[in-house]
Amino acid sequence: MSQAEAPTAAVLVIGDEILSGRTKDSNSGFIADTLTDLGIDLEEVRVVADRKAAIVEAVRALSEKYDYVFTTGGIGPTHDDITADAVAEAFNVSLDVDPRARAILEARYANTDMELNEARLRMARIPAGAELIENRISGAPGFRLGNVHVMAGVPAVMQAMMDAIVATLPAAAAISSETVEAGRGEGDVAVLLEELQGRYPAVRIGSYPYHDGTRFTTRIVLRSRDDAALKAARAALDAALEKS
Amino acid sequence: MSQAEAPTAAVLVIGDEILSGRTKDSNSGFIADTLTDLGIDLEEVRVVADRKAAIVEAVRALSEKYDYVFTTGGIGPTHDDITADAVAEAFNVSLDVDPRARAILEARYANTDMELNEARLRMARIPAGAELIENRISGAPGFRLGNVHVMAGVPAVMQAMMDAIVATLPAAAAISSETVEAGRGEGDVAVLLEELQGRYPAVRIGSYPYHDGTRFTTRIVLRSRDDAALKAARAALDAALEKS
Repeated sequence: MSQAEAPTAAVLVIGDEILSGRTKDSNSGFIADTLTDLGIDLEEVRVVADRKAAIVEAVRALSEKYDYVFTTGGIGPTHDDITADAVAEAFNVSLDVDPRARAILEARYANTDMELNEARLRMARIPAGAELIENRISGAPGFRLGNVHVMAGVPAVMQAMMDAIVATLPAAAAISSETVEAGRGEGDVAVLLEELQGRYPAVRIGSYPYHDGTRFTTRIVLRSRDDAALKAARAALDAALEKS
Repeated sequence: MSQAEAPTAAVLVIGDEILSGRTKDSNSGFIADTLTDLGIDLEEVRVVADRKAAIVEAVRALSEKYDYVFTTGGIGPTHDDITADAVAEAFNVSLDVDPRARAILEARYANTDMELNEARLRMARIPAGAELIENRISGAPGFRLGNVHVMAGVPAVMQAMMDAIVATLPAAAAISSETVEAGRGEGDVAVLLEELQGRYPAVRIGSYPYHDGTRFTTRIVLRSRDDAALKAARAALDAALEKS
């Protein structure tokens, strides 16, 4: 496939905290890496504030201009989380508590001391017609409406959602991936991963540290178009993690 | 001064290497920090590829929409450095080797083994009517045309140029901020924060959930140009957190 024929994409990062400089955006870099692996051309990134008019305008402009749009941020439980409202408005559809999303949150909170209060129920509001995007980290789902994929802003959650999205993209056909929970901090696997990356150049090895509520751990994602190389790298990683 | 009266700004990051994920953009974070200190509201960041049409369109759109625009990248010596060409086209002015910029480069290279060859002379091309922006790091200047400030992409050079620009911006009332650790999850403070935001419209209230290694907690940041309002909102927040 030539460059000109490759599908195109844009990333929309939503959040005052990025524009104020208080939080540095790492999500667009992660999405850029993932799209590069998939052969999708990331052509634009925009960062806008938590203001509905700004989000609506950007979603419409990017959705018309590119094949895929990926948004991060603004789908949490607080009053300034207005991404779902803005995406619904951009597509002129309604926004209500979605039974599928509500069931996910209910199951999530059932055996915890967290309550499905009104604030957290905001996270179950999904625009009409949207498909849910799974969130293996903290439950509350993202969603896809048209060509717009709406993800969380917390990096570990965004990365889990991106993993779920990748499997649905036609461009992903040629790419296989393996995900391994290292069960230890990133600092304890960094040397091993660098060594593996040198040994398996056809495999892209990414590591994504996060806190699962109990401990710091690391998700390791291996991606490749070469299935044999991917299997070999996975086996070598499993063996090394077991030994150490 | 109310939020609405603060000067506004946008950052335009230019470069394929950012969009491919090969290079992570740190420049927009630095500019965000600087503008926040100055009391200028950074309202949008865009990242576009090294393609003239994309740069021209973004420069025009951002220049019309915001008080200040800051661009980074694409003013080096190679064929794909086309930011000066694009900015000249966006403002419908000519682009030629500028005698002031040429003199700077000649002085720079005079006592070195570097030659002012045709490639390096590209860096002296400045749109008609622009003012130069000093580059204390490596000589080749940036420029300001209208409300658009054009800077290098190399972070150290960009930062030196930003320092030079700051001195030229009209002094703006600085924003004061207060940071409070809520000591509990975002879902447990959302209702309180919404209520406070309604009570103190001159204060911008943001909440940023994270895991501190032991528990999920929330950092609450209050920002305002109105010191009295800021102090009142902080006191109300402290009181509410103590009670609940």
